Amino acid sequence: MRQSKLLFKTQKTLPKDEVAVNAQLLIRANFVHKLMAGVYSYLPLGFRVREKVMEIIREEMNALGAAELLMPSLQPKSAWEASGRWEGLQKIMYQFKDHSGRDVGLGVTHEEIVALLAQGIIDSYADLPKYVYQIQAKFRDEPRAKSGILRGREFTMKDMYSFHADEKSLEDFYEKAKKAYTRVFERCGLKSYVTEASGGDFSKSHSHEFMVETPAGEDETYLCRLCGFARNKEIADFKKGERCPTCTAGVLEKVTTVEVGNIFKLGTKFSEAANLNFKDKEGTLKPVVMGSYGIGVERLMGTIVEVHHDERGILWPETVAPFTIHLLLLGEASEELQKFADGVYHEFEKAGVEVLFDDRMKVSAGEKFYDADLIGLPWRAIVSEKTMVQGKIEIKKRNESGSKTVKAKEFIAEIKQ
Amino acid sequence: MRQSKLLFKTQKTLPKDEVAVNAQLLIRANFVHKLMAGVYSYLPLGFRVREKVMEIIREEMNALGAAELLMPSLQPKSAWEASGRWEGLQKIMYQFKDHSGRDVGLGVTHEEIVALLAQGIIDSYADLPKYVYQIQAKFRDEPRAKSGILRGREFTMKDMYSFHADEKSLEDFYEKAKKAYTRVFERCGLKSYVTEASGGDFSKSHSHEFMVETPAGEDETYLCRLCGFARNKEIADFKKGERCPTCTAGVLEKVTTVEVGNIFKLGTKFSEAANLNFKDKEGTLKPVVMGSYGIGVERLMGTIVEVHHDERGILWPETVAPFTIHLLLLGEASEELQKFADGVYHEFEKAGVEVLFDDRMKVSAGEKFYDADLIGLPWRAIVSEKTMVQGKIEIKKRNESGSKTVKAKEFIAEIKQ
Repeated sequence: MRQSKLLFKTQKTLPKDEVAVNAQLLIRANFVHKLMAGVYSYLPLGFRVREKVMEIIREEMNALGAAELLMPSLQPKSAWEASGRWEGLQKIMYQFKDHSGRDVGLGVTHEEIVALLAQGIIDSYADLPKYVYQIQAKFRDEPRAKSGILRGREFTMKDMYSFHADEKSLEDFYEKAKKAYTRVFERCGLKSYVTEASGGDFSKSHSHEFMVETPAGEDETYLCRLCGFARNKEIADFKKGERCPTCTAGVLEKVTTVEVGNIFKLGTKFSEAANLNFKDKEGTLKPVVMGSYGIGVERLMGTIVEVHHDERGILWPETVAPFTIHLLLLGEASEELQKFADGVYHEFEKAGVEVLFDDRMKVSAGEKFYDADLIGLPWRAIVSEKTMVQGKIEIKKRNESGSKTVKAKEFIAEIKQ
Repeated sequence: MRQSKLLFKTQKTLPKDEVAVNAQLLIRANFVHKLMAGVYSYLPLGFRVREKVMEIIREEMNALGAAELLMPSLQPKSAWEASGRWEGLQKIMYQFKDHSGRDVGLGVTHEEIVALLAQGIIDSYADLPKYVYQIQAKFRDEPRAKSGILRGREFTMKDMYSFHADEKSLEDFYEKAKKAYTRVFERCGLKSYVTEASGGDFSKSHSHEFMVETPAGEDETYLCRLCGFARNKEIADFKKGERCPTCTAGVLEKVTTVEVGNIFKLGTKFSEAANLNFKDKEGTLKPVVMGSYGIGVERLMGTIVEVHHDERGILWPETVAPFTIHLLLLGEASEELQKFADGVYHEFEKAGVEVLFDDRMKVSAGEKFYDADLIGLPWRAIVSEKTMVQGKIEIKKRNESGSKTVKAKEFIAEIKQ
């Protein structure tokens, strides 16, 4: 992609009140644009990161045997009354009247809606288990939206729902989902810890949260670095320095974390509210057993920025970087140099290497380096008069200081391995 | 995909008040689920059609040089005041107060928002032209939502915006976009007519609509089948039977059409309202010239159903079908037959042929045929004791009556051509 063709320009000024590191970097690097508190647009580079994060999530959910679908944001009050959550969630749910005077709300989550949807599809034990997920906009009127894209008023959530005939089936899938979640975060370049947590709004039964260590987080977690034991401070009664209750060798630390995912054994709370029943083998009508599994897409993206940055800008892990290589054309480009740079650009494109080509004229080398560090692609490739005479490019990793001068072809072979 | 694994079941009953053919068929075939008037969920099969339609749109927009981004639905009143549309659109826009008492609304379109976004990115003639698009949820409180997914209260729109230094540049891109739109509809199996139309809410300058002939439409269009001339009845003063003003040979017909896309030359209305200016070569500050280009994704999907169906169900064009082949396992399947059917299924999957495998047990052949016709995949393949003894499958096109018995391998070679 030619940088000159994108609606894109790194920014010198920040909106007032934007205190979160993730938002500051993403706004300066022009990945996101702030429309109002907690509400952001995703510009072409930010859009690409978001897509890559979603693709990783999709692959892992599909591997679980879940099928993707899409439910609406606009929802009638009636769907939320049986579970008691129209009132229960009214502090954070946008609820209003349409032009005919009907009460509607914007979905903060979809347990009620998916249970209604499954009625008429699931009615026998033979229809179970079933797993579905969506990647869809959610709305929450957060009283404090100061964490950048970690806590948006409008955000994208991957929410998966599972339907089972019994607790055993739920338990099996729940454990598989737990592993899939850990893989999602790992593939996004994040080390996550699974913590037991309270069920929150959902249920009194078991639930787990996935925590990533960062000072930007809003949670406190007791952590044993030796064995990976983690427990949310809310439900734990440890003291700092206490021995780990699992491995007994490690010492517990209290660390600040951000919750990047959560999974819930819902039991029959929502199926009972929605009359979602099935006939078991004996013909007895029973409520379906449900689970729900959430990942906030932009929160995950923001966490990656919080964990992977330095004083100069972002350091995107290769798996989620908007492009792999930032190709910079330096100097007062002669026609010959432009042609050479174009050739290198096309060589990358032809080889299927994702490349952002800073082809801007009349921009100093210093400014291009500054922008490239801020944007934070994994590799930087320089083309200048100096490299052209050797028929080569100068390659440097974003997170390393040394560079080397090689032929584009050799470098392509190296990263395509 | 194994049908037994999907959250999916064809439906016998319809919601009350669902009169539109597209919704009736899509609900019966379990592609969509109705949550409330004008608000639908997209189940796995419907989700796949929607994805294919969006992928066609994406390819054509990318080919125009437009980059994808994503803007939010939740929008502050302030963004809509300068253009005068907070009041102008209040009859169809969901507008409400958040918990802090601020006025917010749900986006019905994004001209105001994209103009704000482009500020600080576009400030010189060297930054122009630029093209961006998004595929994003829109909300409109339609007074009558009786046309199924043709007119939803929540729906997905591809909206593209172009930014130019002058009218000439807009004109060039507008003509390219017009051709790209025609290709989108053609690739979706639809013959579209470009009609001149009034600018509607947007502007007094030129705009065009893309019309597809179907009795389900809400528009009336004068049409010359000979040369393709078309004019919206709203702005035309023709009589039925009048000679075509363009080719003079054809005779005008008045036909019912649905509007599947529209494009607008906005001029400087929204850039002036948002203070989106650029410096020209002489250093003079000028408002950016804009264009906007919309396609309703679900409306397009619904139109395909309105045009391509018969009394038994849907007939999906191959380009947008959720799967290419419906593989039916018939009869009281012995272990041997099941194994043979599984083998055929894996052969299709391995060859990259998208196959839906009706592997349900205890379901009669008649019911499977009925469901397959309703779902409407382009090809039906039968595996039974009779075909197994020959090591073959029986192949039939959805829209043809004849069938033939061939080896799976031969059929794969045929459709992969």
